[in-house]
Amino acid sequence: MFDSIILIGGGNVAHHISLIFEEKKLPLHSIITRQSTRVGNRSSHEFEQIALAELYIIAVSDDAIAEVSSKIADQYADANPLVVHTSGSIPTEAIDNRFKRRGVWYPLQTFSRSRSADWYTIPMCISANTRRDANSLFSLAREVSSNVQYISDESRAALHIAAVMVNNMTNHIFDLAGDIVEAEMLDPDMLKPLIKETVSKLDNMSPNQAQTGPARRGDQAVINKHLDYLRANLPQLVAAYKALSASLTKRFRE
Amino acid sequence: MFDSIILIGGGNVAHHISLIFEEKKLPLHSIITRQSTRVGNRSSHEFEQIALAELYIIAVSDDAIAEVSSKIADQYADANPLVVHTSGSIPTEAIDNRFKRRGVWYPLQTFSRSRSADWYTIPMCISANTRRDANSLFSLAREVSSNVQYISDESRAALHIAAVMVNNMTNHIFDLAGDIVEAEMLDPDMLKPLIKETVSKLDNMSPNQAQTGPARRGDQAVINKHLDYLRANLPQLVAAYKALSASLTKRFRE
Repeated sequence: MFDSIILIGGGNVAHHISLIFEEKKLPLHSIITRQSTRVGNRSSHEFEQIALAELYIIAVSDDAIAEVSSKIADQYADANPLVVHTSGSIPTEAIDNRFKRRGVWYPLQTFSRSRSADWYTIPMCISANTRRDANSLFSLAREVSSNVQYISDESRAALHIAAVMVNNMTNHIFDLAGDIVEAEMLDPDMLKPLIKETVSKLDNMSPNQAQTGPARRGDQAVINKHLDYLRANLPQLVAAYKALSASLTKRFRE
Repeated sequence: MFDSIILIGGGNVAHHISLIFEEKKLPLHSIITRQSTRVGNRSSHEFEQIALAELYIIAVSDDAIAEVSSKIADQYADANPLVVHTSGSIPTEAIDNRFKRRGVWYPLQTFSRSRSADWYTIPMCISANTRRDANSLFSLAREVSSNVQYISDESRAALHIAAVMVNNMTNHIFDLAGDIVEAEMLDPDMLKPLIKETVSKLDNMSPNQAQTGPARRGDQAVINKHLDYLRANLPQLVAAYKALSASLTKRFRE
């Protein structure tokens, strides 16, 4: 597989990759985090100390991938290492094109500093330019996860949209629903059992089978009552409530 | 408390109330489900056999509460029993006004026939006309749940909107996100670890603290890319994605 891996990044993804690589005794040579030296108003990032490795995993923010990979390419493009990033939304080509061997090693999960990650269940999405590199990345992913798949840049971009929806959008809905509860001087944690059961239901049935509610049953009177309330109390949510109700109506009542 | 309780309804809520009442050995006298006798194209529901009880719990669909309570009032309004419904969105007054003693006994949870309910954690929302009836309903709810609160009709209506959001709307988002994944010929179950972690995170932090994603960080380029994809592939979702992104922007970037 790989004899030396260098991981670049100081965020949650890099943090959790480093933890699982150490746990699985994978040959993680070093972890490079941003060394920022403030010079006036600008900060510069030093990659001079970076060593040569067989695989570089760039786990930095999306818009830093090009720059970071270019810094490594300045030193090591000629040595022809494999360079991958871990982003859902960025194409492989964002990695500096002086590298011939580029790929992606994307864990489809949300990571928090304060929570341990259950790597075994995380879908790992792999891509690479050559079958050989894909196989190596696949093997590396299989060391940490039971669910590894080759995914094209296009499919990964679509997966990332789905991920944004089920993670970011639903979390924002939880946040806004909590506001409604707080406005009634009640504890937003009241919603937690319902939130947990909403997700636990998916162990037994598909979201389509689990769907209930006023829009599902075409109850326009309740929908209008809800919209009146939201207009008066949480106007920020009116458009989303309307759009999701319309989408439910389209799916179940047309 | 109550010496005799009659439960009316054949749906999931009535089913799960009957199970927990039997488990807790509460004095459930009988369960009345809809007896429909088809006469030509019309069905009639017979409540003639209903007995007298101290408490009637009407756990039927929202739009049947008035009719069912009226049928019971025809026979027993003079006996002055307590009559409650179990709906989140319907005011107490939907119960026939020949009853002097009316109330609500609303479990804030989604129920499925095929899944057991964890009543101990379910927030029970109680209301009644008199303090005495409220106390009795409170005691009954405490027999099954650790979390019982007096909630006004107005607050319960707001809670119900929050419940529709965290249950119906997020479930629909899971459904649509699954469509995206399936369109790439991938298994929508790939999203499950992410969905589970999205909710599990709320054990450690609030949704506000847990929020991530392109709209959270003001990444308009990614949002536009997602909208382009949705316009081409899942136009049904464009309005909701836009509205939720705008709401996130309002919350975090303004």
